[in-house]
Amino acid sequence: MKTRVLSGLIMLPLLVILYLGGYVLFAACLVIGIMGVREFYNGFRAMDVRPNFAVACVAAVALYAVGLFGGDSAEWYMAWFFGVTVVSLLCLFNIEHRKLEDAMATITGIFYVIFFSFHVTLVDRTEYGLMIWLIVITAFGTDIMAYFSGYLLGKHKLCPHISPKKTIEGSIGGILGSVVLSGVFGYIFMPDVLVHCLIIGLLGGVISQLGDLTASVFKRKMGIKDYGNLIPGHGGILDRFDSVLFTGPMVYYYIVLVMGHIS
Amino acid sequence: MKTRVLSGLIMLPLLVILYLGGYVLFAACLVIGIMGVREFYNGFRAMDVRPNFAVACVAAVALYAVGLFGGDSAEWYMAWFFGVTVVSLLCLFNIEHRKLEDAMATITGIFYVIFFSFHVTLVDRTEYGLMIWLIVITAFGTDIMAYFSGYLLGKHKLCPHISPKKTIEGSIGGILGSVVLSGVFGYIFMPDVLVHCLIIGLLGGVISQLGDLTASVFKRKMGIKDYGNLIPGHGGILDRFDSVLFTGPMVYYYIVLVMGHIS
Repeated sequence: MKTRVLSGLIMLPLLVILYLGGYVLFAACLVIGIMGVREFYNGFRAMDVRPNFAVACVAAVALYAVGLFGGDSAEWYMAWFFGVTVVSLLCLFNIEHRKLEDAMATITGIFYVIFFSFHVTLVDRTEYGLMIWLIVITAFGTDIMAYFSGYLLGKHKLCPHISPKKTIEGSIGGILGSVVLSGVFGYIFMPDVLVHCLIIGLLGGVISQLGDLTASVFKRKMGIKDYGNLIPGHGGILDRFDSVLFTGPMVYYYIVLVMGHIS
Repeated sequence: MKTRVLSGLIMLPLLVILYLGGYVLFAACLVIGIMGVREFYNGFRAMDVRPNFAVACVAAVALYAVGLFGGDSAEWYMAWFFGVTVVSLLCLFNIEHRKLEDAMATITGIFYVIFFSFHVTLVDRTEYGLMIWLIVITAFGTDIMAYFSGYLLGKHKLCPHISPKKTIEGSIGGILGSVVLSGVFGYIFMPDVLVHCLIIGLLGGVISQLGDLTASVFKRKMGIKDYGNLIPGHGGILDRFDSVLFTGPMVYYYIVLVMGHIS
């Protein structure tokens, strides 16, 4: 428990980055994405799968370049998806030293870590850029509230095969916590769209847990406990941001697809 | 050789579909994409990998719905990529019966087969819709010309570990054939953009061979000779369209990214 609280404090510099936004956030997301995908690929080593980290780095830089210069048109993003998939597959031409799994893990890692985390920068650039805070409020709020409510009330196991300590009571507490925290945020900073903040809180409470469990599944299958050891005792980048990978896109698509059409 | 020529004739109905374009082409691409991804997934069975075909079907229908109703905005396509990746990963929650490879193969198959083949419909809707013919001219033209020039002149192996029969002479002949055939097509039907047709012919001559070899790598790693047996003696859908998967996106991105900016 002490560790959990401390790990929260270590996130403080990130709050500054979120507050600054713009190019600072843009650069931070790129760096965190690349560090994250490296951890993800390292996890595959135990399975004797060797994804191509160089391809992921080029893909990350290319995606952020598209974000900067590609405008809002679909073509450049789609070309990026095509390019990432083709280049990852072409690595298999070194057929004697490559397995299909290497290319499939390269592709999965780029989309799961780099593309997902990229959405944080996209939210920052919408007309509701302030909602970037909801990405972390739903992710970390759910996590912390689920931990405490599970600690106090937890009785029924949620999914013992994936994450043995999680309970249904904790999961519900996490969702409620996310809704309340998002509501408080909306009430103070974005009262005009309070109801949207509450809905994002609800969705975020669910999807951040899915993000958490997805990372648990990966780690379990890879046979590792943590993705990394960046902050001693707190695991790696991906251990901290597994929920953000899911809440970032959720908030973005909520803004552009739901709010964009209502308002 | 007789088989090759015959397989050409069997493609005739496809020419009618290409000529009609519009919704007929749209529906045909959706069906071919779904049949193709099924063959692709079946190939994984020999490796004891079980991708989720149901997810691929839903993903295919969703992508074509985005193509119909999503307009030209990036958001819906990006949401599709996010959704495909998330849903494929969530299948791993059935952790005792699923391997990481199952989800990674699901993702790879959807992007490689469904997303790539979808570009044929996108070309049809550009202002240079006639260039849809260049997708097949470069794909099948390269294949046929490479076969004949390899047959007549072939001496030096191209990549014996991937495809033992292919020669450097055949490869060069295929590229030249693609340029000549695309040039003839451009001269007759699109003289205004003849030079673009020639460039597409050159790029297509290279990338269609990469598409062919990529399929060969997959089949070799999967331990199968052909993807399917749809047309007896001619393999499956993917055996016939392996090059189109690559030339389709190439022609599309050439039109929207290169020609779109020049003209």
